[in-house]
Amino acid sequence: MQTIHDLETPSVLIDLDRMERNIARMQGYCDHYGLKFRPHIKTHKIPAIAKMQLAAGAVGIACQKLTEAQVFIDAGINDIQIPYNIVGPQKTARLADMSMYNRITVSADHPSVVRGLSEAAAAANGTIRVMVDLATEIERTGASPDEAIELAKQIDSDDHLHFAGVLVYPSYPSIRPRLQELLDGLHQAGIGVDSVSGGGTGAAFTAHEVPELTEIRVGTYIFNDWNTITAGWADVDDCAMTVMATVVSRPAENRAILDSGSKTLAADRVADGHGCILEYPDARIYKLNEEHAYVDLSACEDHPVIGERVQIVPVHTCVVSNLHNQLYGVRGETIEEVWEVGARGLVW
Amino acid sequence: MQTIHDLETPSVLIDLDRMERNIARMQGYCDHYGLKFRPHIKTHKIPAIAKMQLAAGAVGIACQKLTEAQVFIDAGINDIQIPYNIVGPQKTARLADMSMYNRITVSADHPSVVRGLSEAAAAANGTIRVMVDLATEIERTGASPDEAIELAKQIDSDDHLHFAGVLVYPSYPSIRPRLQELLDGLHQAGIGVDSVSGGGTGAAFTAHEVPELTEIRVGTYIFNDWNTITAGWADVDDCAMTVMATVVSRPAENRAILDSGSKTLAADRVADGHGCILEYPDARIYKLNEEHAYVDLSACEDHPVIGERVQIVPVHTCVVSNLHNQLYGVRGETIEEVWEVGARGLVW
Repeated sequence: MQTIHDLETPSVLIDLDRMERNIARMQGYCDHYGLKFRPHIKTHKIPAIAKMQLAAGAVGIACQKLTEAQVFIDAGINDIQIPYNIVGPQKTARLADMSMYNRITVSADHPSVVRGLSEAAAAANGTIRVMVDLATEIERTGASPDEAIELAKQIDSDDHLHFAGVLVYPSYPSIRPRLQELLDGLHQAGIGVDSVSGGGTGAAFTAHEVPELTEIRVGTYIFNDWNTITAGWADVDDCAMTVMATVVSRPAENRAILDSGSKTLAADRVADGHGCILEYPDARIYKLNEEHAYVDLSACEDHPVIGERVQIVPVHTCVVSNLHNQLYGVRGETIEEVWEVGARGLVW
Repeated sequence: MQTIHDLETPSVLIDLDRMERNIARMQGYCDHYGLKFRPHIKTHKIPAIAKMQLAAGAVGIACQKLTEAQVFIDAGINDIQIPYNIVGPQKTARLADMSMYNRITVSADHPSVVRGLSEAAAAANGTIRVMVDLATEIERTGASPDEAIELAKQIDSDDHLHFAGVLVYPSYPSIRPRLQELLDGLHQAGIGVDSVSGGGTGAAFTAHEVPELTEIRVGTYIFNDWNTITAGWADVDDCAMTVMATVVSRPAENRAILDSGSKTLAADRVADGHGCILEYPDARIYKLNEEHAYVDLSACEDHPVIGERVQIVPVHTCVVSNLHNQLYGVRGETIEEVWEVGARGLVW
């Protein structure tokens, strides 16, 4: 039986007890409020983990790219939402093809995006399922309520498109007035709304305060990370992912260097650091090079020695998974699972 | 014949003319000054490209991890420097094994690191080549000159270690006094110095001002990026790597969203942005999510439309290569090479 001591460093460990608890808690919340739950697999990119989420009661998955979706289709998962504008003749043709035998739903925030989807669906003599993407406070993608109503009409009147509802990200309660405006407009236009899909780990546990929502998409909740802790959405005990690293240099009294740089932890930064070292919570990872983490020990009572192993809660789990070929599922120190990160690096 | 228009986005393109010019220029500089040149392959992680660097005159390669080195050994490259403390019984045993049939050279900055290497080499009844790592102004790893002299004695007197010289990173001229202090001490101790290896793209073209150096290790020079341009080490015309992306949303007059987020460009940031869009140099990539780049168009005369493709010079090439499965070598718009990123994600 292999243990974490048999692994090289850096390696990414997943605490199975915590992950299972995180899965159960989110599904339980959604079940309690009658919300459908659709995990976003960008956080782990591993079909076996998605199947655990589905077994717990999820209705399907969300992912961000067509190539990601294909990995999960190949693993037998067929209800996939891609909350993204799929643009360009190659991608829309591929989407039309994938939609023949799978329930794929995409989003759109502009008439030209809808036209592209329509042309591809018509060329394949198929149907593409399309939600309208409502703009939110983060000012990323999305249409205004008025624009979204027009888009819904465009989709609904197209023989080769199916209007699949409304998408918002993130779905904080502050979105309600705009969401109601859109839903009222759709009602007046006589357009039925299958689904109102919200999202975001931060907005997850207030979803019941947005009764318009029928489902939520959440990714990071399954592992949590230093971002979600810093935002107050999780505790350290909720963090299922750690990066196991080795102290490879102690060049000064208050400096340690770990073998986990930006190619391991990603360059994301929060609260003035690149993650939390569980054994030395007062230490600060103040800088990363590609294969070096610089650690300031000046606030620490104990100092690590060269060769010592530590576990780091990373800043952003989703980009960490994407940097690694395997994640190791552990219970205590025992390795129970070695998962290939199946959709790692799939950006198309 | 495939062209870049046949590729999906985001894709990473390598301009072969520029890459070949960058290889020739650096090798020419080193040849002119009688410096050995050792490209650091962390920038591309592709054996076929390393072979082009060797064919141009490089003496070997540098890489940062044992698993990376193995990919290049398997491709037939046998002179590999790993400027890193290799720590822990599993890694040192693997290093001893790899050193049996290959010229592998590592560095050390502490007696305990040297002891670990010695034990592994003795257990394998082999020899490990070890340089001393001299601390520099960046305050990463490295020993002081006095400590380095003691380390060199420790290495030199060990039956299973070979003292392979001195390593500095970066090797700006400001390091000379400390380097001379170390070299004087080694001379007085009667310890011969095979090699004095400097490094860093920024320090590359001043290496002749550090006559103590016998070789330099440089990585980023082969592609260049927005970091090297911002630092004044390269021009836009020297940038061989671009990320081809698509405008997927235009949700506001002065905002565009590209399909190249932090899983494509990495989260690195310089000069208030995440890279330069060649077609819209006045645009600013001000924020990245995993699969979205947020672009501010307010300073642009022309604005892109949905579906338009652009090419981005990324902030840091080395972390971009590591995120992708393939790089595409192009001449004009024709794809001449499709390289698998062989050592991508190898962090051990």
